[in-house]
Amino acid sequence: MTAHLRESPEPIRLAVDCMGGDHGPSVTLPACRAFLDKHAGAELILVGQPEALKAAAAWPRCRIVAASEVVTMDDAIEVALRRKRDSSMRVAIQQLKEGRDGAAPQAHACVSAGNTGALMAVAKVLLKTLEGIDRPAIAAVMPNAAGRFTTVLDLGANVDSSAENLLQFAVMGSALVSAVEGIEEPSVGLLNIGEEAIKGSETIKLAGELLRAAGTAGQLNFFGNVEGNDIYKGTTDIVVCDGFVGNVMLKTSEGLATMIGAFIKEEFSRNLLTKAAAVMALPVLKAFKHRVDHRRFNGAALLGLRGLVFKSHGSADAFAFEQALARAYDAARNRLLDRVHDRIVATLQAKAGDAGDNAANVVAQAA
Amino acid sequence: MTAHLRESPEPIRLAVDCMGGDHGPSVTLPACRAFLDKHAGAELILVGQPEALKAAAAWPRCRIVAASEVVTMDDAIEVALRRKRDSSMRVAIQQLKEGRDGAAPQAHACVSAGNTGALMAVAKVLLKTLEGIDRPAIAAVMPNAAGRFTTVLDLGANVDSSAENLLQFAVMGSALVSAVEGIEEPSVGLLNIGEEAIKGSETIKLAGELLRAAGTAGQLNFFGNVEGNDIYKGTTDIVVCDGFVGNVMLKTSEGLATMIGAFIKEEFSRNLLTKAAAVMALPVLKAFKHRVDHRRFNGAALLGLRGLVFKSHGSADAFAFEQALARAYDAARNRLLDRVHDRIVATLQAKAGDAGDNAANVVAQAA
Repeated sequence: MTAHLRESPEPIRLAVDCMGGDHGPSVTLPACRAFLDKHAGAELILVGQPEALKAAAAWPRCRIVAASEVVTMDDAIEVALRRKRDSSMRVAIQQLKEGRDGAAPQAHACVSAGNTGALMAVAKVLLKTLEGIDRPAIAAVMPNAAGRFTTVLDLGANVDSSAENLLQFAVMGSALVSAVEGIEEPSVGLLNIGEEAIKGSETIKLAGELLRAAGTAGQLNFFGNVEGNDIYKGTTDIVVCDGFVGNVMLKTSEGLATMIGAFIKEEFSRNLLTKAAAVMALPVLKAFKHRVDHRRFNGAALLGLRGLVFKSHGSADAFAFEQALARAYDAARNRLLDRVHDRIVATLQAKAGDAGDNAANVVAQAA
Repeated sequence: MTAHLRESPEPIRLAVDCMGGDHGPSVTLPACRAFLDKHAGAELILVGQPEALKAAAAWPRCRIVAASEVVTMDDAIEVALRRKRDSSMRVAIQQLKEGRDGAAPQAHACVSAGNTGALMAVAKVLLKTLEGIDRPAIAAVMPNAAGRFTTVLDLGANVDSSAENLLQFAVMGSALVSAVEGIEEPSVGLLNIGEEAIKGSETIKLAGELLRAAGTAGQLNFFGNVEGNDIYKGTTDIVVCDGFVGNVMLKTSEGLATMIGAFIKEEFSRNLLTKAAAVMALPVLKAFKHRVDHRRFNGAALLGLRGLVFKSHGSADAFAFEQALARAYDAARNRLLDRVHDRIVATLQAKAGDAGDNAANVVAQAA
């Protein structure tokens, strides 16, 4: 593998879609400002309608790039792809592309709170997928009972993922966790259903075989099958699943957490006595709220593209959006793109070796 | 539809697999005793090793049926099906079958905390599926923010469900909710992933069409697509999904709830001050715990069989197992089996009508 630490203290530059999300610049600008203050080695390219971004005109380490259009949260993918060709989302992603003369890209990573379907579609068309990756995937972290994080992918970019897709998700997830969390050989679980029923579909069984082989070949740290509860137990660093399943899992979790939060609030507001108890318990409730605060985990990675794109929750506030910026910054600083590339090449090489082919050839093709 | 209230005050008889689950008779017997005390119209058939059940020998409205073997939680399905032919699980289910002379079954419903895979397999072989049902499904209730319950199926009996299967789940779920919750036309949501990605697989799209058609024909109250968070919002009375997705959803929820519970406990035990706050907040914490206590919702229905089988959580305590008994009792009392049958017949009739076939013929066949 290539060395993953940047040798020169070259600044990391993020392109920010300032118009995306439910709130646009009223959230993204304060987040950018706070982020800049905390990251002396960072620069930002703020993309959007200049009028809306003029507050940032004089900020240090900051440049505004004009984009006249905005992809709304309800815009169909087609609209984002074909009609709004000067959208802040598109122009922000464009910053990740090499110049026509082969000049280095303007930015190392891009962050948007715009709608996921549009973001993935535009990113796919502009950046293309990495060699060896059939489908990009969306990865995000969940807090777990072990006090760490579980990275789960795919969260909705794909439905009907094949066994090969799931293997690729595992490889990309491993690159992400080693880059961002600093765990060199993160463990990978394959999301399945328990002994209590037919053990998974044919696709899942085949994916298990592929993952086991990759584990044996030393390309992955494959743990085996995991179940839904293992995500929050923290049984493995990474959990891979089809995007349909991952999306249901994610939204179910959001729904359950919201319901539990509402129940706690209701019970503490019931009468004078319970309200007094709430006052007493305030520091505890605050500490609890902090631990399960999903804003801290904001920033999903779109993996498998020839460029680092991070997606913030559409309803993110400034604090949450700042976390997504920080996550993108860490990924770029730790050369996530190179790591994904290296791992995919290594996996292709191992598979080619297995098949008795000339591995060097495949690597040369993939590199 | 036939009238669903039992006209004669004939007692409802439940067959109980007393040996199943993690704890066997030490949990099932106290639960049975408490259940009998609260349900004057109920009778129990306690199935298991007579030695283990002798405490119940003199109980009123109670009869012991001997079974020499026990299906353990780890037993493979094959073991339960072919080797342990005198298991308490098998004998309990056997009570739902007509006698050889056509005599009425011994019991109206059966309850077991044994392993789900084995229970479903044995029940399928002994009871067979209802006419018009290709695959049985597992249904359970989740509490929701609207203060009611959301019934979700399938929770793991099937993987790779077809659109037809999903339609059948919707019909069976409607029968269950109308029988047990008393909602005559319960609303049905189809679990899907949001606008944020490709909207579901081909199967889900087709299922949506079938459900819409059944709704238009008046066979179902179809709401449309729902997402994971809608389960806990209570957007619809019923949510249908493939068993793989449902199982992941269920176990993820269990994992998240456990983690949140542990976090609350940890924060309140941090130091003397937080412990004092916990004492103050005790009534609130108790009320909260009660609301999210999954033991209250214990008892999943195995739907689509020619007999009512209810599955208790394997780790259920006596309180939880008693709830499963009560759920089975309510279902039997409200003629769930007839309701499922009637609804399936009506759906087949409507489909036959759509196709321009002779509907009466199909109904005659199905009845």
